[in-house]
Amino acid sequence: METWDAIRARRNVRGYSHDRIAREDLERILQAGWRAPSSMNWQPWHFVVVTDPEVLEALSTTGPGTGHVATSAATVAMVAYHPEDDVHARWLQYDFGQATASMMVTAADLGIGSGHASVRDQHEVRTVLSLPDDTVCPYMVAFGYPAGRPLRPVEHPDRRPFQEVVHWGSW
Amino acid sequence: METWDAIRARRNVRGYSHDRIAREDLERILQAGWRAPSSMNWQPWHFVVVTDPEVLEALSTTGPGTGHVATSAATVAMVAYHPEDDVHARWLQYDFGQATASMMVTAADLGIGSGHASVRDQHEVRTVLSLPDDTVCPYMVAFGYPAGRPLRPVEHPDRRPFQEVVHWGSW
Repeated sequence: METWDAIRARRNVRGYSHDRIAREDLERILQAGWRAPSSMNWQPWHFVVVTDPEVLEALSTTGPGTGHVATSAATVAMVAYHPEDDVHARWLQYDFGQATASMMVTAADLGIGSGHASVRDQHEVRTVLSLPDDTVCPYMVAFGYPAGRPLRPVEHPDRRPFQEVVHWGSW
Repeated sequence: METWDAIRARRNVRGYSHDRIAREDLERILQAGWRAPSSMNWQPWHFVVVTDPEVLEALSTTGPGTGHVATSAATVAMVAYHPEDDVHARWLQYDFGQATASMMVTAADLGIGSGHASVRDQHEVRTVLSLPDDTVCPYMVAFGYPAGRPLRPVEHPDRRPFQEVVHWGSW
């Protein structure tokens, strides 16, 4: 798919069909995250990929907005070692965001929907995924083919007016 | 360009040619940011677009790694109102990261390079861009056609081994 079509086709998908994601496609999505830019190229991330329905079910109760993970075809848990200070804590958030968007656009290109999830229960996610004690897993990204309408460029996304968001020259 | 080519062609570009970016292309890059996902779709961002060489020069001294902004064709300053608490502060970082990657991939699709910059001097950036006092501008993204080799898919990016980053099933 053309890049601009993929950028416009990506939308928040939380209802998934029963179709599996081919290993090759999943690898490509992960490669997009692996290739994502990060502050000083520190690449703080580990991506834990889950496709086992029982584990997905367990992950789906780790936060208030994680229910859709249960029926995803695959979910990527974003993990890093606990940041050493506030600066690195901010970088970590920003860089997880960069990896997330890179993976989501790559998924959209393949017709695969994605939905973000914030993890609240850190102890639980560490237990479910056997993560080391000194790691954090603030986010998961769920992937799957949409249960409803397939991905197509969205003409009028639900966004604040463009003119209100973009300032030319100065505020 | 195909999405997967754009994802692989994006690289950190800090040396720019003298070519301007067409208004239409700049608008598309900004639309990608405007369309980016954000936590609960809160869209905390304002994007201030700078193309005036004098203003770019002024922005280029707001941080230790912002020098490349001076010679960019356009730089987008990412601005938001001061987050109300720690949760929103984290969301802001993550969502700026999502918008950043969306803009960078869209730029790469157009052959336009991009380079991230962290802003350290908040007072200075507010002064230069006439930002309201209760805003923050943690990041800028500089854009321009590469001075050197054009963007092409990078076969072997400088990254940690893929097998070390990606964990299948559990840690």
